[in-house]
Amino acid sequence: MRGITKKIHLTLPIPTEEDCVSDQERIQRALKKQGVDAVLPLPILRKLYPFCTEENWDFTISLAYDGGQWTAVNLEPQDTTACHYGYAADLGSTTLVIRLLNCNTGEILGEASVYNHQIQFGEDILTRIFHAKDQPEHLEQIRRATVDTFLEVFAQLENMTGISCSECISMVVAGNTTMVHFLLGIDAFCVFSSPYAVHTLNPGFLCARELGFPLLGYVYCYPGKANYLGGDIISGAIATRIYEKKELSLFFDIGTNGELIIGNREFLLCGAGAAGPALEGGSVKTGMRAVPGAVERVELKDGHFHLLTIGQKPPQGICGSGIVDMLAQLFLNGWISIQGKFLPEKSPLIHLEEEEYCVTYAPGLNFYQSDIDEFLKTKAAAVTMIYYMLELTGLPADEIGHFYMAGAFGAHISKESAVTIGMYPDVEREKLVPVGNSSLTGAQMLLLDRSILEYLDRIIETMEYVQFGAVDNFIHLMTAATAIPHTNLEQYPSVVDEMKRRGLLR
Amino acid sequence: MRGITKKIHLTLPIPTEEDCVSDQERIQRALKKQGVDAVLPLPILRKLYPFCTEENWDFTISLAYDGGQWTAVNLEPQDTTACHYGYAADLGSTTLVIRLLNCNTGEILGEASVYNHQIQFGEDILTRIFHAKDQPEHLEQIRRATVDTFLEVFAQLENMTGISCSECISMVVAGNTTMVHFLLGIDAFCVFSSPYAVHTLNPGFLCARELGFPLLGYVYCYPGKANYLGGDIISGAIATRIYEKKELSLFFDIGTNGELIIGNREFLLCGAGAAGPALEGGSVKTGMRAVPGAVERVELKDGHFHLLTIGQKPPQGICGSGIVDMLAQLFLNGWISIQGKFLPEKSPLIHLEEEEYCVTYAPGLNFYQSDIDEFLKTKAAAVTMIYYMLELTGLPADEIGHFYMAGAFGAHISKESAVTIGMYPDVEREKLVPVGNSSLTGAQMLLLDRSILEYLDRIIETMEYVQFGAVDNFIHLMTAATAIPHTNLEQYPSVVDEMKRRGLLR
Repeated sequence: MRGITKKIHLTLPIPTEEDCVSDQERIQRALKKQGVDAVLPLPILRKLYPFCTEENWDFTISLAYDGGQWTAVNLEPQDTTACHYGYAADLGSTTLVIRLLNCNTGEILGEASVYNHQIQFGEDILTRIFHAKDQPEHLEQIRRATVDTFLEVFAQLENMTGISCSECISMVVAGNTTMVHFLLGIDAFCVFSSPYAVHTLNPGFLCARELGFPLLGYVYCYPGKANYLGGDIISGAIATRIYEKKELSLFFDIGTNGELIIGNREFLLCGAGAAGPALEGGSVKTGMRAVPGAVERVELKDGHFHLLTIGQKPPQGICGSGIVDMLAQLFLNGWISIQGKFLPEKSPLIHLEEEEYCVTYAPGLNFYQSDIDEFLKTKAAAVTMIYYMLELTGLPADEIGHFYMAGAFGAHISKESAVTIGMYPDVEREKLVPVGNSSLTGAQMLLLDRSILEYLDRIIETMEYVQFGAVDNFIHLMTAATAIPHTNLEQYPSVVDEMKRRGLLR
Repeated sequence: MRGITKKIHLTLPIPTEEDCVSDQERIQRALKKQGVDAVLPLPILRKLYPFCTEENWDFTISLAYDGGQWTAVNLEPQDTTACHYGYAADLGSTTLVIRLLNCNTGEILGEASVYNHQIQFGEDILTRIFHAKDQPEHLEQIRRATVDTFLEVFAQLENMTGISCSECISMVVAGNTTMVHFLLGIDAFCVFSSPYAVHTLNPGFLCARELGFPLLGYVYCYPGKANYLGGDIISGAIATRIYEKKELSLFFDIGTNGELIIGNREFLLCGAGAAGPALEGGSVKTGMRAVPGAVERVELKDGHFHLLTIGQKPPQGICGSGIVDMLAQLFLNGWISIQGKFLPEKSPLIHLEEEEYCVTYAPGLNFYQSDIDEFLKTKAAAVTMIYYMLELTGLPADEIGHFYMAGAFGAHISKESAVTIGMYPDVEREKLVPVGNSSLTGAQMLLLDRSILEYLDRIIETMEYVQFGAVDNFIHLMTAATAIPHTNLEQYPSVVDEMKRRGLLR
């Protein structure tokens, strides 16, 4: 492991009159022999005596890298190199997920998550931003809530593993630009307001204690590219290593916002745009989070719904992956048109309720026309980003070597359904790769491999950021993408085949 | 000035949607254009908003160098580059002297000094060391006293100049190894006890606030070579630049201890040894510090003393420079022998008092045989270091290009008298250069010229440290050096000439 922390066991010769270099130098020379130039800061200098004498010069030194140099952050008696821990964190606006890692082996010792305590100041991020705007006390509340969120997860991890945060050296955090501002205690109004020049995108390595964390070393925040393209996405790009591949790759992280990066080792384009809450089930009337009782798989066969719920509980609503299946199945069975409109003559399950068509997919649970419309708008926004970016590269969709879909949504939806509704490009299915929480993966990778730092800034610098809002024909492109799978059917040959097979197309 | 601090006035374009890099990057890019890669730490990141907006992006950034990188430490509205201040300090065990400098011009804006507050824990350094030894509360008392000493001088300088320490960026401190340990709050027993492996010799740049100083940036402590050859001497070597001269130079700092460095740009030898308090008038019965009323010049002519006192006050005692004159004059007038023994037949002023010969040099003031003996022992110790070191170089005394004498003592004694008693080598007088408080000068130089850091560690590393205590024939050499000017008269041709002229030698 060539991570951002080290633990080195030293057994040094006891000073004699013939060998009487200073304690500091004795240690620094020994470290240098192991290839490490390290600074011994004041707290460590103060600890040298009587520690070294008492421990008979047999101890373990913990070192933290700050991007420029190694700093000694702890001395422990004897050999404790086996206890070498660090954190990787994905600081989302909804959830904070942290992994505790064995920094010698890379083994994940524990993973825990909690809702972001910032939620008390607003469910959505904008409310929080306005709460803190130009009100230092409110900003401090939010900063404190952010820190407390971390402390809660640290405590959970300690319960799980017996390893406390004061035994951990450093932490890598991947978060969007707003989250990083709040973590640092900086006003984040800049993120959402013109001219979108935020206060910091690359705070680098910060002393953990200065941030309020009782870790020994540093907290590194993944740098961001722009206000809407933060360290969480850069971390995802690192996780998928799209910047080093010869083939064209597309990395897509979609939630309330969609962020994507397309490119290869030659170039990288990136962009971000609003997607809306539909993908997370947020604007669907019977939508719900992916918790037990949520419909996650939908099959429509011989006029009947076959549902799979999380935890095999009776259906209480439908989550994102269920919605994608639902749309695909309604479409492939001809119950909705290419424009996503219900065709009520196709099934008695389709009926009017309060002047709106809907289909009853489970007892008491309806899927409405407005749900479809809302979702397709979101899908269109997301897909348009993809096609627009592809167009900028001048390359056709079938040049895509890998399509990486980040997030829980990408991990759970059916590839077939997503292609059917035109949410994923119609490429060979093995090219469609759900990557899960790639922000967390990228954070973990950097914790364990500091060589990423050598090219990270350069990658971000060479990235070209596309402002979708500034794109003239974006609305036009979006309208075309609202159709299922897309107005331009040629881009979806496998869907066309399936439509033909089912007699929906001749 | 290429010092360890910078102030840079920035007038930056106000962010627009077309130019919306982060505030942090906007500043870092502007600094980079001026050739500075700078880190913006958390307190500065937190200050960016609303500061930059409110100041319309017209402000001055203060930067401090930490040996590896530049760190932003302050933001001030508009152009304050003219107010660019720093401190150079000579932390002696008796006195702390600090200069306040204009870091743009190098101008000395003020200089002040106070007695080291550590004195309350012991007049001499060993008492203080024992007070603190293995007693953390006592060590903390001494550390606190050290910091308070600085704060008192800062306050004096503020009274003199109106410039407070919170307006100063960084400080360079030259102090001996014990003083640096105490400043950092580290037990210093190691300095005086076998195996003489001290805890730190090169603490480097320390955060001023961590040390207890309200400065903006760092405190740099001059690195030392060994327990008895501390940063104060290294600073003096830097001040005299003996390490870059082709000619052989000798740097000598004598007080209670004598430290010396001999060499040129090819090699450097250094050593230290106890000298005793005699040179500062400490063991002379009527000895006193160089304050008004102290005899500082002595001439003996036609059997009478002609005295000069500091402040033209009636004589109350004799200080170091007076003692050297006294010995030279007694010797050149034949009142004492080459062994420094009174020849009572030479003057009625020489008489017995309590079974000891002495000479009355002013009403009620006697100079005793034991005073002479004590002083000559000290002189012998000092001179022997010089000859021993010279011998090690294999070069004769007349190869010495410059003999630099540091300290108040060196600044005030008569060169002729010092050569006469064999305290200085008998070289051309212009080669004998008193350099005053060279520790302070070296500290000031480094504050104003960080390029010294590029070679400082290397110089110290190439220095060879000679343990006088470990030298076999040191006592033998010392005995030879007790004579006036020296047993080996050949080394003192000008003294021999004068002795012949006066009929003391044929």
